[in-house]
Order: sequence, then C-alpha cells, then structure tokens
Amino acid sequence: MNTEKKLIFGHKNPDTDTIASALIYADLKKQLGEEAEAVRLGEVGAETQYALDHFGMEAPRLVERVSDEVDTVILVDHNEFQQSADDIRDVQVAEVIDHHRIANFETEGPLYYRAEPVGCTATILKKMYAEHGKDISKEVAGLMISAIISDSLLFKSPTCTEEDKRAAEELAVTAQVNLEEYGLEMLKAGADMSSKSVDQLLTMDAKEFTMGPHTVKVAQVNVVDADDVLNRKEDVLQAMEQEVSSNSYGLFALAVTDILSNDSILLTAGGEEKAVEQAFDVTLNEHEALLEGVVSRKKQIVPPLTNALS
Amino acid sequence: MNTEKKLIFGHKNPDTDTIASALIYADLKKQLGEEAEAVRLGEVGAETQYALDHFGMEAPRLVERVSDEVDTVILVDHNEFQQSADDIRDVQVAEVIDHHRIANFETEGPLYYRAEPVGCTATILKKMYAEHGKDISKEVAGLMISAIISDSLLFKSPTCTEEDKRAAEELAVTAQVNLEEYGLEMLKAGADMSSKSVDQLLTMDAKEFTMGPHTVKVAQVNVVDADDVLNRKEDVLQAMEQEVSSNSYGLFALAVTDILSNDSILLTAGGEEKAVEQAFDVTLNEHEALLEGVVSRKKQIVPPLTNALS
Repeated sequence: MNTEKKLIFGHKNPDTDTIASALIYADLKKQLGEEAEAVRLGEVGAETQYALDHFGMEAPRLVERVSDEVDTVILVDHNEFQQSADDIRDVQVAEVIDHHRIANFETEGPLYYRAEPVGCTATILKKMYAEHGKDISKEVAGLMISAIISDSLLFKSPTCTEEDKRAAEELAVTAQVNLEEYGLEMLKAGADMSSKSVDQLLTMDAKEFTMGPHTVKVAQVNVVDADDVLNRKEDVLQAMEQEVSSNSYGLFALAVTDILSNDSILLTAGGEEKAVEQAFDVTLNEHEALLEGVVSRKKQIVPPLTNALS
Repeated sequence: MNTEKKLIFGHKNPDTDTIASALIYADLKKQLGEEAEAVRLGEVGAETQYALDHFGMEAPRLVERVSDEVDTVILVDHNEFQQSADDIRDVQVAEVIDHHRIANFETEGPLYYRAEPVGCTATILKKMYAEHGKDISKEVAGLMISAIISDSLLFKSPTCTEEDKRAAEELAVTAQVNLEEYGLEMLKAGADMSSKSVDQLLTMDAKEFTMGPHTVKVAQVNVVDADDVLNRKEDVLQAMEQEVSSNSYGLFALAVTDILSNDSILLTAGGEEKAVEQAFDVTLNEHEALLEGVVSRKKQIVPPLTNALS
C-alpha cells in the first residue's frame, strides 16, 4: 500500500476525455511535485487509440481494483460511484475534476471538487495549468484537443461551450494540428461499427444511471453509417433484453449517433420503455425511434429521461 | 416567478460563514452583472449580528421556500439537501461554493461546483474575486474576516488552513480591523449561552447527517463558560431525548465548545449513543464526555462518528 501516491482515473468504459484527462492531470500533478499515476478502468477504444498514437502517448495502466494499491484517489470526468472503480467506497476521494451532473457520490470529509458546466473535462484542466502557471506540452495539448473534439463531436454537440471551442483553437497551435481535419479523422477512427460484436456495441460506451426508483443504462455509439448497427437490430435488441433481465434495469437505451448528420437513432428495451416516448415526444416503432438533432447523452438524453422516470 | 434571478443561500440554522458567504457572493454576482439575491433560511445569531453591525451591513431576507420565487438557486457553505431549503428538490442548483464533504446531493444536469478543503467558504470566495479581477470593498472584506474567524475559532480549529489565515491577514488591511481583538469580541458576542432557552441551545447551530443507516443530529454551541449549559443539563438531555424520538434519530449529540480552552463537552441522546465511546475513545458518564482539543464538528466529530456508525 502506497499511502503517498494517488491514482487518477476516469469512468468505466473509458472514452477519449476520460483517458486523456487522467493522463493530463497526472502530468500537471507531476509538474506540481505530487505523486500521482493515471490508470484506466477499461479497454481503450479505437478513437482514443488513434489520438494516443497521433501524439505518441501510451495508454494508462489498466486496473480492476484501486484499494489494494492506494488509500486515496482522484476522479476525473465522472463522479457517480456506479461508473467508478468497483471498490471506490473503500478509498478516500481527495479530488474530483468533472463536467457532469452530481449523483450517487458522497465523501466522509471535505475534498477538492471542481465541476464546471463545460463540454469536456480537459477544458477545465487547461485552465488549471494556467492557474498554476505550468506549461502545456505538445503531447498534452494534443490530448486536450482530442478530448474536446470527442466530447463535442467536433463542436456540434449542445454541450460544447464557447470556452471549449476557444480552448481547442488555442491548443491547436501548440499541438500543431488542423482541428477539422484531425478531428474528423479521429472521430471516423472510432465510428466504424461494422467490425464490432453486438456485445461490444452495448458496452463500449455504456453508463448506468439512477433515475427515480429505476436503474437505467444508456449506451451510445458513434457511426458514419447507422446500418452498421441497424442491420443487426434483432440481435442487438435480444442482447439488450437479456441485460435488462439479468441487471433488473428499468430501461436500457442504445443511442446510435450519426457524427455527420448529428441525429441519433434510439433502440430500447425494458419495462419502462414507454418513458422514452414521453421524454422525447416520439413514438417507438419496434423499439426504435429517431431523435433528430440529439447527439449528447448528458444534455439531451439523460435529463429528459430522468424527468420522465422520476 | 422570476426566471432570470437566482437566490443565493447557505444552510439552515445559519452561522456567520453561511450568512456572510451569501452576501459576499451576491456582491460578486452583482459586479459580474448577474441578477442574484442573498437570502437566509433561519434566524441570525448574536455573533453574526455583531459582525453585520460592525461593518454596517443588513442581514439577508428570510425565506421559507424558494421554488415559489425562482427556478434556479446557488448554494453556499452547504450541499446536503437536508441542510438546505425544504423545497430544494423543486429547483435547479446552478452553482455550489462550499468547503464541506459532499453527501445527499444530486442534480439532473451539469453545474458549477466548487469545493475546496479550506476552513471557510469565504476564503474560496475571496479567491474568486481575484480570478474575476473584481475589487473587495471594506464591508465585504469585513464579512470575509468574520466568516473565517467564526469557522476557525480565531485560527484554532484544525479545519483552519494556511490559506484561511493568509486570507484573513490580507483582508484585515482592507477591513481596518485588528484580527485578534475584533475576533475575540465577535466570538464572545455569540458565546453567551446563559440567556438562551434549552430549545435555542439545541437549534441555533444544529445539522442533520446521514451516517450509515442512521440519521444523526449534531448541534454545537460556543461558550466562554460551559456551566451556562451544564447547569441545565437535565433539561437539555430531556429535550434531546424528545427530539430523538419524534425524529427517529439514531443519535443526537450536542457539542459545548469552549472558545478559550478549545475543548468540547459532548452531551448525547439516542439508541446509538455508544458509538460516541467508540468514535472518540471515551467513556460516557451520565450522557456526557469531555473531548479534549475537539472544536470542529466537520473535521473532528462527524468523520469518526460516521465511521463508527457505518
């Protein structure tokens, strides 16, 4: 047990912001003379790997449990315990840097908690480098840009703020990339779903939420061609039904988000399925509905669903 | 309903930091061109009134409910819903500025949340003035000093950090006060318990906490003479027992904190009373124990109790 070192990690089913933010904050901590190591709670996706490769960075180490190694951790890009390490309640959370709602999170004592309603955790971290008067290397700038583009779908998501956009533009100089070109290549690298198994589709970016009395899972995949998923719709729905019954979910929704048209097709399973119709004012047709202009799970899917189920 | 304006308020049973922080943040918001009004959820205590009078400030307006007036609020100096407005779940929490643990708090969407493990909310607010490049008036400096001295018991509490102390020293110049002299007068103004009713002793600074399966109330009074409370011990204990049964508390603890010796005498009631012995390694003698060097509810009372009860 290392009582000096802190582990820094983002949520399960890590996306680019989660992996990047852990690496970025570990770099800042190192510059500040603190002992901290970035780790991850799941596999690195193709989009994230593209970003890591482009900037010559290694993925953080994979861990299953954290309390065997340290007694104190730092969470980035999440706070809800069901999205965190399985043994998160056995360690002390010293810091959280995040841009999500707060729920199912508690501590015994005071902590440093910094959440801002911006599009991406990396945008907050960029500001923290400035506050501490520390330099952002080309590699760290590249990770920040990748995280911002990923979470904002190249600035198209309603979660994207002026601050995210301005941060990315400033960082593009340091990282020496063209935002549009690099961004589209990175998103495309993560959006080929034709080779993914049904199981992978449902787990690569899936989060659980507590909504009213129900546990709800919302998974999301980015595509350039929705048929990559829809031509296996029956298999996908069957696997979702199985997850619903084995985990007692009230609802399992899979958002298939087209990164070019910026619409999502929602596939649904579970006893509370009808809440989707109320939440988005749509009619489900064979467990499927088109949500026009919806790309953000956090801002456009979770709040109306929470509302409908509470 | 004013959908532009936000109400800013601290916890129920307001102390000096809660009242001061609401007024301070409303001043900063005004300077930033945002419409926000400081309000309070309870009566102003003698210590706080001394500070307000000294710097020529008015107490914020008392409110019972907030959702009739606004749809968005800002919390200062607390986050736990049971310490907040009764209808807190009916409004949106846009921001939290706090220095306590996080528990029983959740939002539907992203927010601005800023917690730092310092001794006082006003210390964080002072930093925010600097970040926004705004000036701190003599009155606001006085409120900040009063909040820091109150929460730190004149820098004696273990919750007091170097940052709190440095902030108070800097602000003393603007506020034109001698910290030690002003601080002791202010603390003494709030520490005369001889004229308080038993009911007042138990409610003036009382907070509820969820600890494991139990609801626990921890009240605290500052005294210069513990006999102000102890010569009414039987009446106090009886009133505590009544509260325990009408509210199903697992434990009700009253900390009588001597601001000169920096020790506390704990009086206890409730079925989980024995947890106090385990938490503080003391033996209760007729529902009473001396906790040497204990002045901070947040840092020295709540964590060990939570531990013992979880």
